[in-house]
Amino acid sequence: MHTSPTSRIPVAVLGATGAVGQTFIRLLDGHPWLELVEVAASERSRGQRYGDAAHWLEGAMPRAAAELTLLPCTPDAVTAPVVFSALDASAAGAIEPEFARAGRFVLTNARNHRMDADVPLVIPEVNPGHLALIDTQRERRGWKGAIVANGNCSSIVVTLGLAPLHRAFGIRRLFVTTLQAISGAGYPGVPSLDILGNVIPFIGGAEEEKIETETLKMLGDLAGAEIAPARFRISAQVNRVPVEHGHTACMAVELERSATPEEAVEAFTSWRSAIDGLGLPGAPERAVVVTHATARPQPRRDADAGGGMTVTVGRIRRDPILDLRLVASGHNTIRGAAGASLLNAELLVSRGMIAP
Amino acid sequence: MHTSPTSRIPVAVLGATGAVGQTFIRLLDGHPWLELVEVAASERSRGQRYGDAAHWLEGAMPRAAAELTLLPCTPDAVTAPVVFSALDASAAGAIEPEFARAGRFVLTNARNHRMDADVPLVIPEVNPGHLALIDTQRERRGWKGAIVANGNCSSIVVTLGLAPLHRAFGIRRLFVTTLQAISGAGYPGVPSLDILGNVIPFIGGAEEEKIETETLKMLGDLAGAEIAPARFRISAQVNRVPVEHGHTACMAVELERSATPEEAVEAFTSWRSAIDGLGLPGAPERAVVVTHATARPQPRRDADAGGGMTVTVGRIRRDPILDLRLVASGHNTIRGAAGASLLNAELLVSRGMIAP
Amino acid sequence: MHTSPTSRIPVAVLGATGAVGQTFIRLLDGHPWLELVEVAASERSRGQRYGDAAHWLEGAMPRAAAELTLLPCTPDAVTAPVVFSALDASAAGAIEPEFARAGRFVLTNARNHRMDADVPLVIPEVNPGHLALIDTQRERRGWKGAIVANGNCSSIVVTLGLAPLHRAFGIRRLFVTTLQAISGAGYPGVPSLDILGNVIPFIGGAEEEKIETETLKMLGDLAGAEIAPARFRISAQVNRVPVEHGHTACMAVELERSATPEEAVEAFTSWRSAIDGLGLPGAPERAVVVTHATARPQPRRDADAGGGMTVTVGRIRRDPILDLRLVASGHNTIRGAAGASLLNAELLVSRGMIAP
Amino acid sequence: MHTSPTSRIPVAVLGATGAVGQTFIRLLDGHPWLELVEVAASERSRGQRYGDAAHWLEGAMPRAAAELTLLPCTPDAVTAPVVFSALDASAAGAIEPEFARAGRFVLTNARNHRMDADVPLVIPEVNPGHLALIDTQRERRGWKGAIVANGNCSSIVVTLGLAPLHRAFGIRRLFVTTLQAISGAGYPGVPSLDILGNVIPFIGGAEEEKIETETLKMLGDLAGAEIAPARFRISAQVNRVPVEHGHTACMAVELERSATPEEAVEAFTSWRSAIDGLGLPGAPERAVVVTHATARPQPRRDADAGGGMTVTVGRIRRDPILDLRLVASGHNTIRGAAGASLLNAELLVSRGMIAP
Repeated sequence: MHTSPTSRIPVAVLGATGAVGQTFIRLLDGHPWLELVEVAASERSRGQRYGDAAHWLEGAMPRAAAELTLLPCTPDAVTAPVVFSALDASAAGAIEPEFARAGRFVLTNARNHRMDADVPLVIPEVNPGHLALIDTQRERRGWKGAIVANGNCSSIVVTLGLAPLHRAFGIRRLFVTTLQAISGAGYPGVPSLDILGNVIPFIGGAEEEKIETETLKMLGDLAGAEIAPARFRISAQVNRVPVEHGHTACMAVELERSATPEEAVEAFTSWRSAIDGLGLPGAPERAVVVTHATARPQPRRDADAGGGMTVTVGRIRRDPILDLRLVASGHNTIRGAAGASLLNAELLVSRGMIAP
Repeated sequence: MHTSPTSRIPVAVLGATGAVGQTFIRLLDGHPWLELVEVAASERSRGQRYGDAAHWLEGAMPRAAAELTLLPCTPDAVTAPVVFSALDASAAGAIEPEFARAGRFVLTNARNHRMDADVPLVIPEVNPGHLALIDTQRERRGWKGAIVANGNCSSIVVTLGLAPLHRAFGIRRLFVTTLQAISGAGYPGVPSLDILGNVIPFIGGAEEEKIETETLKMLGDLAGAEIAPARFRISAQVNRVPVEHGHTACMAVELERSATPEEAVEAFTSWRSAIDGLGLPGAPERAVVVTHATARPQPRRDADAGGGMTVTVGRIRRDPILDLRLVASGHNTIRGAAGASLLNAELLVSRGMIAP
Repeated sequence: MHTSPTSRIPVAVLGATGAVGQTFIRLLDGHPWLELVEVAASERSRGQRYGDAAHWLEGAMPRAAAELTLLPCTPDAVTAPVVFSALDASAAGAIEPEFARAGRFVLTNARNHRMDADVPLVIPEVNPGHLALIDTQRERRGWKGAIVANGNCSSIVVTLGLAPLHRAFGIRRLFVTTLQAISGAGYPGVPSLDILGNVIPFIGGAEEEKIETETLKMLGDLAGAEIAPARFRISAQVNRVPVEHGHTACMAVELERSATPEEAVEAFTSWRSAIDGLGLPGAPERAVVVTHATARPQPRRDADAGGGMTVTVGRIRRDPILDLRLVASGHNTIRGAAGASLLNAELLVSRGMIAP
Repeated sequence: MHTSPTSRIPVAVLGATGAVGQTFIRLLDGHPWLELVEVAASERSRGQRYGDAAHWLEGAMPRAAAELTLLPCTPDAVTAPVVFSALDASAAGAIEPEFARAGRFVLTNARNHRMDADVPLVIPEVNPGHLALIDTQRERRGWKGAIVANGNCSSIVVTLGLAPLHRAFGIRRLFVTTLQAISGAGYPGVPSLDILGNVIPFIGGAEEEKIETETLKMLGDLAGAEIAPARFRISAQVNRVPVEHGHTACMAVELERSATPEEAVEAFTSWRSAIDGLGLPGAPERAVVVTHATARPQPRRDADAGGGMTVTVGRIRRDPILDLRLVASGHNTIRGAAGASLLNAELLVSRGMIAP
């Protein structure tokens, strides 16, 4: 049985001043189940008012958040039972386990623990069952809290763009080339002199390896206390492009059981997500939609679909070598980062694992 | 034996007011072997002074060209023995054969005749031998002139980026995703509302099919009076990106004979183009160069290499599924269009097939 | 006394497929007072389903609109009592009077009738009293309907950015340089080759003259049956910049009664719009807000303020020559076009001049 | 009498790894009079090979420069008699006087000493006579060397765009709004998330004050041992726009002696620069050209005029309030920075003040 909370659950954001931290704060503004009560950040800005410390990037800063004081990133200073982590990888590795040890639920966007065998890497619509790893994690590590991760922004778009096909036909091989938005690099991130009117065919931090590994974990199966990753191979090439938000993934796919483009469209259309009907506040009507327009999806026009939580798939056609060609596009800082963590939290609330 | 002309050869540009036509005119300015004497265009602007009719797109218009009067696109009006065609496909199909029939050499960037069995589709550094088709063409069609075509802008970048590998190891399969500059669409071309801060995963005019077919013809072998296309398969996905000039091709390649990235680099480095030493004025020092920089090639920074005639290849690495991953980038309106036709003309001059 | 309508009033959009037409349709989607029942367009697309004919530019097309059939732009074909005109100037001149003659309220964004002596050019927050011209207009022209115009997109941003200062201190001279978004040119509008990474210091259609005249009319006073335009002089220079939405106006102002920057801020803060408290659905909380951030307003970050209906003013400071320097920025297709017409209609509804 | 050097003069670049430093190195490549022999930089990169330390921003790095080793910025380590300073303001204040004291000619782009009474702020075509301040400077400071500065990038464009008018009619008042390229902020400079598809109406480092003061000094007269700045007032508003290179200045000008637009054009056309005929290698054919095209100058299309050393002026027309409206555009890192210093050096060589 699934539940809505009877009162709003207090939450904190770690790494609150950065680009992903800001997206958490925007998405938490007015959230029906969760209430932002604390923000924490790196040493430089601690003690400052959030409204003064953050170089706010989009729209107007929520007023309540502006008045919060930036706390240190320690479980002593931050008291909320649920923390969203937008920490840099350099900080997340040490800090997140401290919070889990102290009994907190850590919903993290950082890469550090994603591939840990006992850390669930979850997209609620795709692999909610992986949350069972929380028990293993607590047992092995002796934690009362837990770390639940979401994938890298490009891995999430790729995974959602493939999930209906993988369920229906099985993926055997994937060639993917991404065109990724600048907001994926955070702030200040990509210098304008590098990207204005340009393409950079590389993204640091092992972006290609993340796609090649995280996707398989997310599409994998829970086998006892472990995840058996999906058994196919991925070849990824990433590019940075002068787009504000929205990652595009151009894919060529070989299937276990061959399918025509029409069958592929049908697989997308008939696909039911694992959280349909739960009423999670952040869940879009459809996690994946198919567009039949000739020249879509496009990041600027499709990234905001479903409040930024819908991945749009288009140009589904026969591949001259393998089975299918298709293009998937999704919002990298919402579906691919803060919104992903938030939806994970909502799923945990809905299952009663996080309660007021 | 190869020769330089003793005096400059008069040439004309058909479709002179468009984006590619303008590039012809820029590249012909001060050309040591060729002299622009006539310009021709569609009906709307005929009779006008070129300097008044052309919405000039880059830098300053060459003064001599500005004073020319736009002629009709007929062999009666245009008298030069060599014509460069930047005509739209809608016009080129009818007009180009008229010029060839009238004894002119037509160096064309239009797509209409590229895949005709008796029309050579030539990159001088790659397949100059295909010019032998000219004899077949003349014989079959009863022409005194001839049509010599260059490939589509993206096909040329892909072909040059592959040629050294194909020669050394043989290509067996190619997955390619392109990120193409707006200038490839001509003028007015892509509306800014469509592309500013955006990506369009489609290009009209069967761009993907062109890559999938032209590349094989250009990498094919002359077999008697015909071209036997290269026998491998290509899967292409194209994208338009907000870049002014320079197409980027992200490729995953399977080889006939497996090669390491180091061997691939060596193949590029040791590759000798078919026109080395001919002294063609438009030929770059190297038609293909390898960059070892982490995040190159980049269109804005590399498109102008070799005066826009050099394709830069980078990120050569092992592919997780096939043999190699690599990225090639080249200038689409120079190497991929006007500069390509011009180099074809220079090759014909050098071989004595075009003479003053 | 002001009223809300008891049932939704049927409205039509003329010129519905263009960029401004689309913005009307987006803003009308779910409107509490007005119901889109008809769309009309130029000859080419008549009879087509709207969803098929429109090259949709932003987000998802409202479903109800998609199913409407495009009608001819005549009062016989279009029956709604209220029509929003997004017609090109070439068509609006003839068509709009026909509708007014036929008894319809024409809320127009076209430039044709803006400066007609008996056509009110209205920003509800600034000069709602100008609606009194409707009586004159009907009397003079023998119409049962009426034409009510809104200003050019840049004039509206300038006028709102000045209105509080003009009321408090009187403007004596204005130097204004604008940086205008590409969406102001409609679709296909500005070719990407012209504007990507570029600035164009000119906008066709007498953009500078519009700023120099419309602003004075909107800031003018109703004097009997006429508008006495504001008596100051304006020097305008316009630029197109690679921004999607949001026009920026950099202004240097001489005042009738000198004011310090602090007094100017106070004038903005204490300014009350003429429609405060009317509860017009499209009215923002504040029509003009002052930002104290060092480097704001910025179009990408501030254009959406107040649902695109708020103009943001910043960098208010002492001018080295005149009195004040300031920068105003507002959304050009919402506040500066479709949203402006819509707010005018809401004002007419609220006054009972348009009724179900 | 003016001279060319009999052998190339050895020069060094301080702050060689930054954006302006790189532009110095590009412009010095193949220079007929000057030979780059040393590069120096901040502590972090000292001792490294230049080719390894510099994140090269444009085109291919000159090979000779790549092999130089980065030296400390001290006159002991750097031995060249002429040094170009691309140092940050934080470093230039202390370092440049050390070099001048040690007998070196310092041609600086840094802002620190520009407004010092005894430092010439020179545009060779405009105020070469100001070099007479060198004597005063040496006398006052007891230096054997000297500091010669060039103006800020926007001041230089404004000054060149006004100089012919000021000479012919006298400027009385100037309102200027600039649209400045991102390269003016150096590297990494402006974050792409701040400027992509956006405008920032502010530039740090007192950019507006620089325009308001430096322009007057450069247009001033040498009066004995001092500069009497031009006696007019300037009101400046600056903006950052998503343009790679090229600053645009939109100006409204009041003249001492009124002039029509035609007379203004004539003043520009008949203007002779102070260095015409000297044969300085970096001097363009014309330092200022007038364009009559409707929508020019445009930074992307006009910045490279005259090798980046020509300022293009357009849209000269009657101002509705003052005398004239006009737009000037010039390359900010060439004419507005490195090329400016280089031309100053060439002038000193030509006058025999710098000799091999």
